[in-house]
Amino acid sequence: MTSSDDASTLATVPTPALIVDRAVFDHNVATMGARWPGAALRPHVKAFKSTAMAAALRTAGHEGFCAATTREIEGLAAAGLGTDLLLANESVDPRRLASLGRLVRDGLARITVAVDSDETIDAATSAGLREVLIDVNVGLPRCGCEADDAGRLADRARSLGLEVRGVMGYEGHVVGLEDRAARDEGVAAAMHVLVAAHDVVGGDVISGGGTGTWDSNTWVTELQAGSFTLLDTAYAALGLPFRPGLSVLGTVISTNATTGFAVADVGLKALGMDHGKPEVDGSFVWFCSDEHLTFGPPRGTSFADWGVTVGDRVSVWPAHIDPTISQHERMHVIEGSTASSETARVVPDPDAAIIEVWPVDLRNW
Amino acid sequence: MTSSDDASTLATVPTPALIVDRAVFDHNVATMGARWPGAALRPHVKAFKSTAMAAALRTAGHEGFCAATTREIEGLAAAGLGTDLLLANESVDPRRLASLGRLVRDGLARITVAVDSDETIDAATSAGLREVLIDVNVGLPRCGCEADDAGRLADRARSLGLEVRGVMGYEGHVVGLEDRAARDEGVAAAMHVLVAAHDVVGGDVISGGGTGTWDSNTWVTELQAGSFTLLDTAYAALGLPFRPGLSVLGTVISTNATTGFAVADVGLKALGMDHGKPEVDGSFVWFCSDEHLTFGPPRGTSFADWGVTVGDRVSVWPAHIDPTISQHERMHVIEGSTASSETARVVPDPDAAIIEVWPVDLRNW
Repeated sequence: MTSSDDASTLATVPTPALIVDRAVFDHNVATMGARWPGAALRPHVKAFKSTAMAAALRTAGHEGFCAATTREIEGLAAAGLGTDLLLANESVDPRRLASLGRLVRDGLARITVAVDSDETIDAATSAGLREVLIDVNVGLPRCGCEADDAGRLADRARSLGLEVRGVMGYEGHVVGLEDRAARDEGVAAAMHVLVAAHDVVGGDVISGGGTGTWDSNTWVTELQAGSFTLLDTAYAALGLPFRPGLSVLGTVISTNATTGFAVADVGLKALGMDHGKPEVDGSFVWFCSDEHLTFGPPRGTSFADWGVTVGDRVSVWPAHIDPTISQHERMHVIEGSTASSETARVVPDPDAAIIEVWPVDLRNW
Repeated sequence: MTSSDDASTLATVPTPALIVDRAVFDHNVATMGARWPGAALRPHVKAFKSTAMAAALRTAGHEGFCAATTREIEGLAAAGLGTDLLLANESVDPRRLASLGRLVRDGLARITVAVDSDETIDAATSAGLREVLIDVNVGLPRCGCEADDAGRLADRARSLGLEVRGVMGYEGHVVGLEDRAARDEGVAAAMHVLVAAHDVVGGDVISGGGTGTWDSNTWVTELQAGSFTLLDTAYAALGLPFRPGLSVLGTVISTNATTGFAVADVGLKALGMDHGKPEVDGSFVWFCSDEHLTFGPPRGTSFADWGVTVGDRVSVWPAHIDPTISQHERMHVIEGSTASSETARVVPDPDAAIIEVWPVDLRNW
């Protein structure tokens, strides 16, 4: 199989390929860390699924991580990143939970799991897990108990010998609202529910929030955010101080001067499509197929003036980084340019050196 | 890492997990093979990305395959399935094409590549490849030369010593049309263009078509189809004789009786979302998050009567199989039931034995 491990610059990396701008990543981490230093930030590895990137966040002072799958938790522990791991999701899989329980028993990781029902509390207990957060529904129709059931569940957990560290609640229904006032109002309403549940449950931890509410969520003791590291076109629309640092590098494999479009090898299998089409600077994206991106000149520009030809490299900006990264085996990290820090989006230099490769080692289940 | 290799029934397989109904697969392959026997069918492995499944198709008599990526081609060759491989896509990557060229030189595979420009012809020649098809644009804005340029490109290819086996053209803009008459009209118009190009280019091969035009495309000498093997909800809407045989098994991890929904662990990272939401029988799907599917009772049914509880297994039917399969490491094959052949969709028996595991070994690039 062709591997990109031996490519030293973007000019020779096989495409499609994930490109991370290290300067942008560092800028984003520093910006977030100024508001949420150390353990106040619990980076969500579901966004990037890479222990190498998690290690870079630990170097920046953030030792606790949260995750959406047991495989992410196991991978973080195996990579020596198990200081304080939170499975911010429910599981009733006895084998997988027992595997986490063994990591705890053997002192290989501190693992807390979210619970929101009798069944998930019982499953955690049976698996030999010791610490939980009561997951509270704060408005997003997903996991989390009703707030008025949180106290009962905490009592049940404690009666079974579990340590209840506190509560968790994710205001995912408001983190993406582009209207700043509506977003602020939504987070306040959601956190009002969470804090009330915490008053009953007790414990040191109120965990929640995300990239979109990083500066408006003043209620949580730790912020669960992941997308801020590299952003995407959806979050870029919110006017946050974080910058887009993840693109998918493609190669133009075909052009059609008659109709006026070109085709690059960045298809929907190389992108998360749930938030819509990706963007290409100086172009208009028509649509994605499995392995193709059809795109053309922007309105008012002729195909000839657009100047795209077979063999050109293009940077494709995904609408949602989480499911984009999870489609790839690795991220290619380039140095990037701090000089461009005022620019919203910096297109990678086609000859940029690849300074690191971050395996996407936490994919799959 | 938790592996599902040692799970023997669906009751114990970790979720989310791809489930293939072998009886449905066999029905679909037999139905297609009756119209397109042997080499007349060139199964498109991009749909399923598995050499094990390709081997099952070879057992059914289909020895030639087409693929969308060089990695698919290399994987098929490595698995001993290199009798007649077509890269039905353009590439100008010198290293990857050279890798295919070595397979040809060493007699490990017969490989034909699609070309649609001077650049792709030159790249194939430089790589030591010997056989090409002229890819013709028949209406889908993607790859393929303009029909009136096909003769010139064939001449150029031959002048460089390449064998031009014929033409290829994919009517992807019409294969999904639900209106049968419009679909038939569209395929006729597209194939009129392709046949005219073939008249100029020559060669034995007219390659094209797909699952949606399997019985209306009477012009091609070989059909490029892949989705017919397992279908999806998008193709199921066309009234074809193929049946849905691929589901994603999930586990209910949370329920909310107050609002009336449940959450399963089949999120958008376990699904292709470009064709829209998946379906769950007897339920209404609300939305997908990265690792969650929120769904509720159908209209007119109360949450209590719906009866979904934590720990239940659910079958999730994807809207598009190609990017669903490519998110997974393996497919779990169950025997299925031929007795249900008249039923449009058979929900897998929760205790069904897993008779085979098909690795999705052709993922990534």
